[in-house]
Amino acid sequence: MKSALLVGVVGAACSLPAAAQFAKPSDAIHYRQAVMTVMATHFGRVAAMAQGKAPYDAKVAADNAAVAEAMSRLPFDAFGPGTDKGAPTRAKDEVWSDAKDFQDNAKEMQQAMAKFAASARSGGLDGIKGTVGDLGQACKDCHDDYRSKDPVTR
Amino acid sequence: MKSALLVGVVGAACSLPAAAQFAKPSDAIHYRQAVMTVMATHFGRVAAMAQGKAPYDAKVAADNAAVAEAMSRLPFDAFGPGTDKGAPTRAKDEVWSDAKDFQDNAKEMQQAMAKFAASARSGGLDGIKGTVGDLGQACKDCHDDYRSKDPVTR
Repeated sequence: MKSALLVGVVGAACSLPAAAQFAKPSDAIHYRQAVMTVMATHFGRVAAMAQGKAPYDAKVAADNAAVAEAMSRLPFDAFGPGTDKGAPTRAKDEVWSDAKDFQDNAKEMQQAMAKFAASARSGGLDGIKGTVGDLGQACKDCHDDYRSKDPVTR
Repeated sequence: MKSALLVGVVGAACSLPAAAQFAKPSDAIHYRQAVMTVMATHFGRVAAMAQGKAPYDAKVAADNAAVAEAMSRLPFDAFGPGTDKGAPTRAKDEVWSDAKDFQDNAKEMQQAMAKFAASARSGGLDGIKGTVGDLGQACKDCHDDYRSKDPVTR
């Protein structure tokens, strides 16, 4: 774990959606939940620095934000038609009935995430403090509308 | 989803281990399981091409392999002391009692993954066919020794 171990992800994702196919709806549900778990873990480490709950380290912040940003691009193709059931999920019906607005919310989060990751790369702790709020709000806005409190089995 | 959306991960991971802290052992367990789910999903899409089960697309292959490679660097710091319990886990006792060998297995997988991702970037389908086997074997070797068939609650 000594060097640039996460190389190779530059330029990816352009063609990921075309490959976003799952054998079963439950696979899509477990995948998107997994992506959210990874994203939240790495985002949380940087947010803790912004909140003064963890010591600020520029490289740790940048690296964790980079993983969170990479994850932010992945989950939304796994909310395709028919993936509302198959496994317990907190995704509300509105994910599918208001699909356009849901995807717009996703884009807003991704844009806030990009600014957050950029600030973690080059903005110092003050830069992170200046972007983390918008990102947290974007997460909350979407969760308020599209995520239920408890998992549902449809 | 039109451009280089996963930028920013180059050079990361160097400092991730230092930040690999979890509030609770169950957080570490859920995190490492999530990383494995994401890795397996993206690896599987490329492996399907190598097996003739999905049409070969160079960019789709490269992008998915890049995500799998990024994931390959993340889970092993989440197997720290005390993370054998707290949530159901398929990790065998040997993960901790033979920790050095377990981490050696992890490194072998990461090296095979790096070759696999490189072949997906520039080796064509034949290149992928030349690396996917070693990677699959590295996964299997480690799972045979360190992963139980069913989740265990300790």
